[in-house]
Amino acid sequence: MKQVPVGVSARHIHLSEEHIEALFGPGYTLTEFRALSQPGQFAAEETVAVEGSKGRFERVRILGPARPESQLEISMTDSFAIGVRPPVRESGNIENTPGIKVIGPAGEVELEQGVIIAARHIHFHTEDAARWGIQDKQKLKVKVASPRPIIFEDVIARVSDSFALDMHIDTDEANAAGVKNGDLAEIIE
Amino acid sequence: MKQVPVGVSARHIHLSEEHIEALFGPGYTLTEFRALSQPGQFAAEETVAVEGSKGRFERVRILGPARPESQLEISMTDSFAIGVRPPVRESGNIENTPGIKVIGPAGEVELEQGVIIAARHIHFHTEDAARWGIQDKQKLKVKVASPRPIIFEDVIARVSDSFALDMHIDTDEANAAGVKNGDLAEIIE
Repeated sequence: MKQVPVGVSARHIHLSEEHIEALFGPGYTLTEFRALSQPGQFAAEETVAVEGSKGRFERVRILGPARPESQLEISMTDSFAIGVRPPVRESGNIENTPGIKVIGPAGEVELEQGVIIAARHIHFHTEDAARWGIQDKQKLKVKVASPRPIIFEDVIARVSDSFALDMHIDTDEANAAGVKNGDLAEIIE
Repeated sequence: MKQVPVGVSARHIHLSEEHIEALFGPGYTLTEFRALSQPGQFAAEETVAVEGSKGRFERVRILGPARPESQLEISMTDSFAIGVRPPVRESGNIENTPGIKVIGPAGEVELEQGVIIAARHIHFHTEDAARWGIQDKQKLKVKVASPRPIIFEDVIARVSDSFALDMHIDTDEANAAGVKNGDLAEIIE
């Protein structure tokens, strides 16, 4: 049985170094609040506000370290709430996505692009993928058992030596399936 | 192909006649705002507020006509937002569910029970069910095609002469699957 722990992603933002400085001040660097499941990744102490045409979220957690490009990941429910219409995309693929205003304690940034609804995916360490015969970018079917069971289709496999085994879904997907952080999902195809 | 239109249920409340009078005044009756897909059911002009331990929703739509027992249907995302922990239940099955405070223009009601997360289900007219060999209470697998496809398991069949063909899912389920009102789902098992 190919079981994978579920990691539920709440709304969060990745920021470039340039944007961290624009929002928090020159020379500012993020402070780690807690480590994430993927090695080297962390939730920062710092948060920002984001503002769409219909509303605003305060205290959106920044995930570190800094990235080449800033990217806001929200759920579809979130997107309706603040009035932005992002596509479902893989992380990093932000061309032709909407932008948004980001507000920090020392300044504001108007992102020109970078708002996405993250496509569901599984991080595999290279050895896990090899053991189960799974290729990078393969699309998988994954079943979650619960009082409201769901089979997620088109779950994208991402394979790397620097990954730890974890399925990332957003809060809409977790709530629709009645699962929470650390529950187990099963790759069925 | 067994195709069914999708109906997305936003948070809403059904009220007993006693509670309608307590919230809106003696002798009050609901005014139809628009008809729903199920014959005789309607969204009312009237809304109420509901208040949990962590927050409150204003303008929760009342669905009519009045029912024997009041029942608030919210998504799991909603439940975290206002601080109430309802189970996933079929409509009408409200024993041992949490209550909530309901606030109307003429008074308040403390529901002792009745908050649920609605179990996904399909309404079948008796003729649709017969044509497809589907029994009342049967659990079905239903696929939704979209940029983030999902197979919903344990979709409960509800068969009646007074029903119109429609699959009811909540906003978490719709957003997780990237579908909206009127999109088509396919019964695959």
